[in-house]
Amino acid sequence: MKKNYLLTPGPTPLPPQVLESMARPIIHHRTPQFQAILKEASVGLKTVFQTSNDVFIISSSGTGAMEAAVMNLLSCGDTALVVQGGKFGERWTEISKAYGINCEIIDVEWGKAVDPEEISKRLKANPKIKAVFTTLCETSTGVDNDIEKIAGITRDSHAVLVVDAISGLGAIDLKTDAWGVDVVVSGSQKGLMLPPGLGFISLSPKAWKLAEASKSPRYYLDLRKARKALEKNDTPFTSSITLIIALNEALKMMREDGLENIFARHRKMADAVRAAMKALGLELFSPTAASDAVTAVKVPAGIDGEKLVKTMRDTYGVTIAGGQAELKGKVFRIAHMGFIAEFDIITGLSCLEKVLSTMGYKFTLGSGIKAAEEVFLK
Amino acid sequence: MKKNYLLTPGPTPLPPQVLESMARPIIHHRTPQFQAILKEASVGLKTVFQTSNDVFIISSSGTGAMEAAVMNLLSCGDTALVVQGGKFGERWTEISKAYGINCEIIDVEWGKAVDPEEISKRLKANPKIKAVFTTLCETSTGVDNDIEKIAGITRDSHAVLVVDAISGLGAIDLKTDAWGVDVVVSGSQKGLMLPPGLGFISLSPKAWKLAEASKSPRYYLDLRKARKALEKNDTPFTSSITLIIALNEALKMMREDGLENIFARHRKMADAVRAAMKALGLELFSPTAASDAVTAVKVPAGIDGEKLVKTMRDTYGVTIAGGQAELKGKVFRIAHMGFIAEFDIITGLSCLEKVLSTMGYKFTLGSGIKAAEEVFLK
Repeated sequence: MKKNYLLTPGPTPLPPQVLESMARPIIHHRTPQFQAILKEASVGLKTVFQTSNDVFIISSSGTGAMEAAVMNLLSCGDTALVVQGGKFGERWTEISKAYGINCEIIDVEWGKAVDPEEISKRLKANPKIKAVFTTLCETSTGVDNDIEKIAGITRDSHAVLVVDAISGLGAIDLKTDAWGVDVVVSGSQKGLMLPPGLGFISLSPKAWKLAEASKSPRYYLDLRKARKALEKNDTPFTSSITLIIALNEALKMMREDGLENIFARHRKMADAVRAAMKALGLELFSPTAASDAVTAVKVPAGIDGEKLVKTMRDTYGVTIAGGQAELKGKVFRIAHMGFIAEFDIITGLSCLEKVLSTMGYKFTLGSGIKAAEEVFLK
Repeated sequence: MKKNYLLTPGPTPLPPQVLESMARPIIHHRTPQFQAILKEASVGLKTVFQTSNDVFIISSSGTGAMEAAVMNLLSCGDTALVVQGGKFGERWTEISKAYGINCEIIDVEWGKAVDPEEISKRLKANPKIKAVFTTLCETSTGVDNDIEKIAGITRDSHAVLVVDAISGLGAIDLKTDAWGVDVVVSGSQKGLMLPPGLGFISLSPKAWKLAEASKSPRYYLDLRKARKALEKNDTPFTSSITLIIALNEALKMMREDGLENIFARHRKMADAVRAAMKALGLELFSPTAASDAVTAVKVPAGIDGEKLVKTMRDTYGVTIAGGQAELKGKVFRIAHMGFIAEFDIITGLSCLEKVLSTMGYKFTLGSGIKAAEEVFLK
């Protein structure tokens, strides 16, 4: 009897209501029954995106929605400013280059947040910059960027601000309209508690001006088609029916909880994990900008980081994430986003303590759990 | 108590095994457990595609896979020959034009199959044609094209043959390798008995030469990335985990049935529907090239076609499809593909008889059912 526990930053565990909804007999998408669901989900998405702009649902992974942002906003020869501080920041550059966009890059040290002042400087220095691409929570490093401050800079500039909120949306605060964020991109398998397979994107009126002028070739991800379809409460191509029905269930749960409570829950879990790491004598990968959605922790000297993650998963059924790209083997990441709660964190920490102990790492058994419990008791 | 019955050409009904698999707790995609499923599904897809080429799984609707074909094969300024004989043939033109492809169009009368000789003539007349885009089953008209004959022409030409098999795959025969079809595109929600949300595409070595040379901007749908990932038994971006697990279940069922039996079952259901329509005094929209996957039927004079479909659905719970685009209100379409069996067809026909009768259409009640039963008894 092996029980499995998922503490990864995408996919995140699925609530029973979401799972059950996907097992229902499928319905046709061009029916009043499905259109009512799509409408309800569209309204719910606006709440979670904290915007009055339309949120478009794309059948794709999050990367598809990121590419939709690039191709709909910019044309070959345009200039963009990209904040790179991890694997997903780099993805903005890769996509932009595929479209012939000139990329000015702010190369942030992995584990640090971007300095908003640097964005301000670059924008002033180069008035050709049409878009700033950045990341809310950089999943690969567990870093949150200060989107509120960045938006304060771009809002009065000629450039639009595009935020990859794939990992952060529904876990940490992102006041799209209030802060003045132009484009928010997200995906289904993180804070939204769904399987991967849906991408989301919202555009401000300022961003729509670029979308109407872009000359990049596009069809499936053409947001002009998505806007036209949404006016008739439809998607431009066959809706991902099952996942949208599941989305509606997840959004109902989020509505019942309320965004503020959801963010507070994530913050508390993050605090607990950070306190536990400290108690275990482990170092956060990002002490200065640690995310409330996922915590990246340095693998201590003498411990094989890949083996740690593998043993937790294969021997004990507790799946956390290892490091990606240049961080492979150097960090492990514990997610605390979506349908993850207090006692799931305790489970993850207990398994971590067990495996660290068997691997010869020296610490007081139970000290991590105790520190986490103290946070949860508050 | 209203029971619902789905007889539409996408989505098609989902088998209980598929539904159940989607309700299981989600697993992480970068685990040996998921990789085993992805590997098994990849092998199963090759069987259904009747090819030894890799079949790539994309998180997208079928249209995304169609666009992947266009952008990966051709560059701006290239020339393609497009067979248009319905809404989905026209989609090839729309996508191609979005990429600056010069389209030579064969405008086939809706309801007819393309004359393969016409393709031969066009290819000889214009050696610039790099790709021929066509459709296996044109869902909007219920027409099958003779892909075997067309492939016999393109095989020895400089052009690659690209077949939109979204509606036909797993319902009617398509011998990709044996006939010499270069690119096959499909989707999940038809013969494969899955929800919408997955696109599929396979490329011959001849097509890969074009894919390596294409200059069209691309990232998410870049098949070079998909090929590289598949070598490591992965997808380039987060896999649509739940739908791929469901795919594997559906492919297991198809393997147990065997392709020949599956095709024979579809043929028999199509024969039964066609016999029923004749007995009811109704005319097929395509008497010469009627598909074994879906039957389009002309709405008889004096009957409101849209009301017919709506009454069947809203009053009796039996969902068939109406006409699309220029066929709106002029035809209705009964699907017999995927997880649809003999007695589902009987149900659909019985409901059709009931509603036609209440709408004042004159025929002998039960005559359609009787004709269908005679076919099924054979």
